[in-house]
Amino acid sequence: MSDIEFTTRKWVRPEDLNANGTLFGGSLLKWIDEEATIYAILQLGNRRVVTKIISEINFVASAIEGDLIEMGLIATKFGTTSITMRAEVRNMITQKSILTVDHIVFVGLGPDGKPIPHGYTSVTTERDRIPTN
Amino acid sequence: MSDIEFTTRKWVRPEDLNANGTLFGGSLLKWIDEEATIYAILQLGNRRVVTKIISEINFVASAIEGDLIEMGLIATKFGTTSITMRAEVRNMITQKSILTVDHIVFVGLGPDGKPIPHGYTSVTTERDRIPTN
Amino acid sequence: MSDIEFTTRKWVRPEDLNANGTLFGGSLLKWIDEEATIYAILQLGNRRVVTKIISEINFVASAIEGDLIEMGLIATKFGTTSITMRAEVRNMITQKSILTVDHIVFVGLGPDGKPIPHGYTSVTTERDRIPTN
Amino acid sequence: MSDIEFTTRKWVRPEDLNANGTLFGGSLLKWIDEEATIYAILQLGNRRVVTKIISEINFVASAIEGDLIEMGLIATKFGTTSITMRAEVRNMITQKSILTVDHIVFVGLGPDGKPIPHGYTSVTTERDRIPTN
Amino acid sequence: MSDIEFTTRKWVRPEDLNANGTLFGGSLLKWIDEEATIYAILQLGNRRVVTKIISEINFVASAIEGDLIEMGLIATKFGTTSITMRAEVRNMITQKSILTVDHIVFVGLGPDGKPIPHGYTSVTTERDRIPTN
Amino acid sequence: MSDIEFTTRKWVRPEDLNANGTLFGGSLLKWIDEEATIYAILQLGNRRVVTKIISEINFVASAIEGDLIEMGLIATKFGTTSITMRAEVRNMITQKSILTVDHIVFVGLGPDGKPIPHGYTSVTTERDRIPTN
Repeated sequence: MSDIEFTTRKWVRPEDLNANGTLFGGSLLKWIDEEATIYAILQLGNRRVVTKIISEINFVASAIEGDLIEMGLIATKFGTTSITMRAEVRNMITQKSILTVDHIVFVGLGPDGKPIPHGYTSVTTERDRIPTN
Repeated sequence: MSDIEFTTRKWVRPEDLNANGTLFGGSLLKWIDEEATIYAILQLGNRRVVTKIISEINFVASAIEGDLIEMGLIATKFGTTSITMRAEVRNMITQKSILTVDHIVFVGLGPDGKPIPHGYTSVTTERDRIPTN
Repeated sequence: MSDIEFTTRKWVRPEDLNANGTLFGGSLLKWIDEEATIYAILQLGNRRVVTKIISEINFVASAIEGDLIEMGLIATKFGTTSITMRAEVRNMITQKSILTVDHIVFVGLGPDGKPIPHGYTSVTTERDRIPTN
Repeated sequence: MSDIEFTTRKWVRPEDLNANGTLFGGSLLKWIDEEATIYAILQLGNRRVVTKIISEINFVASAIEGDLIEMGLIATKFGTTSITMRAEVRNMITQKSILTVDHIVFVGLGPDGKPIPHGYTSVTTERDRIPTN
Repeated sequence: MSDIEFTTRKWVRPEDLNANGTLFGGSLLKWIDEEATIYAILQLGNRRVVTKIISEINFVASAIEGDLIEMGLIATKFGTTSITMRAEVRNMITQKSILTVDHIVFVGLGPDGKPIPHGYTSVTTERDRIPTN
Repeated sequence: MSDIEFTTRKWVRPEDLNANGTLFGGSLLKWIDEEATIYAILQLGNRRVVTKIISEINFVASAIEGDLIEMGLIATKFGTTSITMRAEVRNMITQKSILTVDHIVFVGLGPDGKPIPHGYTSVTTERDRIPTN
């Protein structure tokens, strides 16, 4: 997964732990969903994006209090109204994977709340797809 | 999915919303992960359970502020050290699905943090598998 | 309190603890208030319900990190515009009480924010009182 | 309730609201429980205090986003191992009551987790009861 | 800093800690900003106040789980549209400083979102500046 | 501030708003403090870092629900035991500043909790300063 760009970082604090003293899976899922939303908005140039499907989430390793972790995403497919992404969360120090997600599919919606074609076929690394809605 | 028993309920409040005014997907994922953990602990009789894989999460419909939702799970397979579950989140009033998850796999760990055989092959509806650790 | 139906479950995590390492009473009160709101909405078929009085909350026992707890409620009286409930929070494994509440009184409001007669005199276990507002 | 000293203040923000747009009762209960704990620690000179009973909570009026509210407590009775308090939450601007609580009973515990006599019979306004545990 | 009036109190719980087991600086900053907002609203008699500048925050000492802390503010200067405050957070028991802030500047806004003259030149200890907006 | 590298991103949701409907300053301060902690740990190769001084925080502009914002930091000075950073929070779409901080000073601590010399004099962009404590 060399092409994923890692951006958002987290410092694991007590409020993120489960009752076994390791990082709570639910918090991890919440963080990656927020990150995917931001990525989808920037790629589709549309603020109205919704999660449709998430598939094959692998909890590869755990994290503990004090760990520094980072989240990354890369678009793998552009559909007519959708975008599919791959995601990884890893330990910043050891660079070992904590979580991988094969497919996260978001859809862009029009003002009527229905899927709307976005017209993009490739990833932008510029911020040239300014949401105008 | 008639055999799922719905238990935990949520009343969607402003803190659960995303910036589009609908239920934030990340909150939903956090809730279902906590519910799955509780279910796995009760079925395996082991407090040390960890999420391994989650597959095919479908965001069927959205929810809005004030909606009452409920979460349910059912074990679909018992492996040697694992348990596989199916999950559904639905609107309590209309009973329509909001989220479905095909597979959530948890593994029970021993005191050394390694997978440990649990010896169960079917669902219990009694609370007879008391965690002793 | 055999007739109480227990529904919502919680897994006590570090963020729920007080500075003495036991379950924070304030979190417990927040959870039971949300649960009571959901119960009242379903029984009165009205989304606009407000807490009026809570009486005799007994903190019977404490809970610690990792405990599984469940919350239950039962309507004990239907007034003209109000509903009175009894509540219990207990440990899922030992089934011992953690918290009991003798009376929680909610009132249903009309569109003008004033109490409105609900017309019910007994508990429903169906979901036949669909809020239409 | 003229003798109550109001201390902690809150500015009602969106995360504190329920789905009807008014202050969520559960948040209010959480706040007053934290405030009562602090008051009890200072009066009993003991960090190990636990809530035992709360009686007659009246939700006198509601609060809305942007309201400034303040919480106050006064000890009304010193038992051998316990302290009983009266509480009020009010709007800072109008000084009108939002919530009143007739009795909040806390007990001080010894190192063994059992109730311990505190030896006090009246309220201190000094901070002369320094917890040494 | 004898003239600061200390009001809001906090009991440091696990959710407030950083990964080193001491009070998370971010939580402390969040608390003092809320307290400063309340103070500014009451002094300017205007609900629409915004933070403009915060200068010289000194983290004098740390706090640990279970500590009781209190926050205080005092206005030090009234500009045409602004108010400047000094702040201190201290341990309630030892009265030693945890955090000091030399200058917190808030500005009052009019209905159009632009700074508006407030007409005040000194601190009020009465609640006579009722926000009417 | 061209040399700041922006990393962590946030999507402003209802729970981040103040009562005026704009981004709550306290949340912003909490986010930047977490980000600065991560940056300091990576630059000093030490998990035990604490905030000492923050100076000249300018709230340049506000943010609203749905805004995408990003946070960046750059080390500006390495002392014997400390590191000084400059920070900026900006809107991802318009790239306009929301918040700037002139100086954030962190100190690295030894196992005894006292400042410890770190031996670094310049910024690393590699992750070669692995905390071993």
